[in-house]
Amino acid sequence: MSASKPIAGGLPLEGLRVLEIGHYIAAPFATRVLADLGAEVIKVEPPVSGDPVRQWGLARDGHAYWWSVHGRNKKCVTLNLKSKEGRALLEELVARSDALVENLRPGQLRRLGFDDDRLLELRPNMVICHVSGYGLTGPLADRACFGAIGEALGGLRYLSNHTPGTTDLPPVRVGVSIGDSIAGLYAVIAVLAGLWSRAPHGRVADVALTEAVLSIMEGVLPEYGGTGTVREPSGGRISTAAPTNAFPTADGGWVLIAANSDALFRILCKVMERPELADDPQYRDNPARCRNVDALEAEIAAWTRRHDAKSLESRLAEADIPSSRVYTAADIAEDLQFNTRKMVQWVDDPRLGKVLHPGSVPMFGASSRQVRWAGPDVGEHNREVYCDLLGLDEDHLNRLSSNGVV
Amino acid sequence: MSASKPIAGGLPLEGLRVLEIGHYIAAPFATRVLADLGAEVIKVEPPVSGDPVRQWGLARDGHAYWWSVHGRNKKCVTLNLKSKEGRALLEELVARSDALVENLRPGQLRRLGFDDDRLLELRPNMVICHVSGYGLTGPLADRACFGAIGEALGGLRYLSNHTPGTTDLPPVRVGVSIGDSIAGLYAVIAVLAGLWSRAPHGRVADVALTEAVLSIMEGVLPEYGGTGTVREPSGGRISTAAPTNAFPTADGGWVLIAANSDALFRILCKVMERPELADDPQYRDNPARCRNVDALEAEIAAWTRRHDAKSLESRLAEADIPSSRVYTAADIAEDLQFNTRKMVQWVDDPRLGKVLHPGSVPMFGASSRQVRWAGPDVGEHNREVYCDLLGLDEDHLNRLSSNGVV
Repeated sequence: MSASKPIAGGLPLEGLRVLEIGHYIAAPFATRVLADLGAEVIKVEPPVSGDPVRQWGLARDGHAYWWSVHGRNKKCVTLNLKSKEGRALLEELVARSDALVENLRPGQLRRLGFDDDRLLELRPNMVICHVSGYGLTGPLADRACFGAIGEALGGLRYLSNHTPGTTDLPPVRVGVSIGDSIAGLYAVIAVLAGLWSRAPHGRVADVALTEAVLSIMEGVLPEYGGTGTVREPSGGRISTAAPTNAFPTADGGWVLIAANSDALFRILCKVMERPELADDPQYRDNPARCRNVDALEAEIAAWTRRHDAKSLESRLAEADIPSSRVYTAADIAEDLQFNTRKMVQWVDDPRLGKVLHPGSVPMFGASSRQVRWAGPDVGEHNREVYCDLLGLDEDHLNRLSSNGVV
Repeated sequence: MSASKPIAGGLPLEGLRVLEIGHYIAAPFATRVLADLGAEVIKVEPPVSGDPVRQWGLARDGHAYWWSVHGRNKKCVTLNLKSKEGRALLEELVARSDALVENLRPGQLRRLGFDDDRLLELRPNMVICHVSGYGLTGPLADRACFGAIGEALGGLRYLSNHTPGTTDLPPVRVGVSIGDSIAGLYAVIAVLAGLWSRAPHGRVADVALTEAVLSIMEGVLPEYGGTGTVREPSGGRISTAAPTNAFPTADGGWVLIAANSDALFRILCKVMERPELADDPQYRDNPARCRNVDALEAEIAAWTRRHDAKSLESRLAEADIPSSRVYTAADIAEDLQFNTRKMVQWVDDPRLGKVLHPGSVPMFGASSRQVRWAGPDVGEHNREVYCDLLGLDEDHLNRLSSNGVV
């Protein structure tokens, strides 16, 4: 079931064909973004089992909810790359694709007979994006990696922790494989920059998980190089601006408050019915508040603990203090702004019924948020791609299927 | 000092001109990525003060180290958009740019006389990317926002925490304004997708911080929609695979260990000189290990606490167990892989001397990592842009400068 509904006004990447030879998160996330923007993505998977991520997380009857989103808007074909016939079919697919995104273990595609030169021979001017843990060159190129290692080496995991001395607990994961997602976004950028490029070296890109993470670390590296200062974690705070943190609420939630200018802090003190705090020498200006941040946060928490999250949220919003509840999945699902903009929407999935999807980002007019189809079954588009696109007849396809080639 | 060294082989976005009317992190991070890839980025700032981010973080003589990276490879011009002459110059800049990235408060550009229609009149087929907190439509469109609020509403902050009941400490910030960086990457995608687009609605993009964060939340939303399950934080763990966590080392660091298959766990037990643990019914398979994860992690931590981080790292690597030290800035700076690939490099900065920069991502051949120039001074490129590009004579520019227009 992949009948595509036409999108009013069209999508920016309509007409672009992208081949994905990927698994798990980074490359498939990249092609999800490309597919959301209208590209025709053909995802190549091993016959029968498919991408292991299809089974990850909560599922019903063996169908993971996440896959409904992760595989959406893509065409899924099976192909056994260990068979000669499988590789011949891959050559045909390459010849008809504008770009390739892959995250096999480094060198695996080359060992299958598809190095960059061969790919560019099959499809001159193709854009090729390799996604790997450590990058394709250097002493660690061949080592296996995954998102959490990218976070650890890129510097993000170390900082996702409380102030040194506060707790013996380890630094936290942010709940998702963010190293993979960031690398995936860079892979999208690589494909689109490559398509625009007129430079001789502008069409083969190398995206490393570790490097994708490091690239977003702001002043962490240059400040160390210039001053020898190792940035330390600061918990929920921003160490140079107080108060900025998440505070506990009476109903067990959190509310984020960023009232770190003197004017905003004065308003916050009024909302807390503690106007005298604004004139207390301990808290009078930002340097003072940063020095006495433990005591300051205790004062604020004593107030927030007496109110539930929604009440705090509205009091703070009325006073125009930058703030928000810290949303759970339930809060996201019912948020008016997300729902109004179709950033939260129910999508028909023939396997799971209605599934709650996030909309596509970036938005190009409201109609661009329409999901065309949910994550397909393994090999669901074999007929469409192998017969309609490559011109195989049905008997041929059936024979390839019986022989385990597709 | 912005003499550009030619890059061997060229950069993919050479020939693309992008105008930035931005400040703080999201839009300027987007244009950093575009400039790293070879685009000619013209950043418009208020005269004299410039972008406040120029002063953020550790600095020497008023020059922040972060700015050296955040502003690199861009041309910085000043322009007072409140003056009529300033707006006339902006019209000229728009007419000569392929794309515009802006993150003024929603509607501010329109109130200055530059709504999308006017921009497209000045430069037909321009790609316009608006970056905002909540997006340009919906009931909250006008509300100010910033990265931390994007994290809170997108669902990331709630999960950046320990397992419920473990601690009263608040969820953590990941140490950087990750909501801004993710939105910035989507803004790059918006610009490049828009340039490729032939669709009528394919050239004006709306990127919201809150939505950029939500888009990477994997199964969190669909699992809630399908089962009513609210995803809870799991600290450093992955709740469905054990052991996977960061463990403390004798020298006060952390080492990340992901030995969550039965085979890897058996090897880990040998490396720990506790082979009997692999056959203990408490830990025999992944479901058992997940049930008894507290006890299991205590066993592993008792071992890691007796060794320093580098020793653990080499023992685990020899055994081929997916693992890594959790890097600080100092570890990143000396890492061989990063240095080999020029992902860590010293860049000449006329204000700060040599500054340690991360390389550009994605990599298009090693030469693409060469930084052309460090973050410029306020208005450093006024003459180049206003005289050489727009054709103003020097007297005219001097007069504009005296009048506070530039």
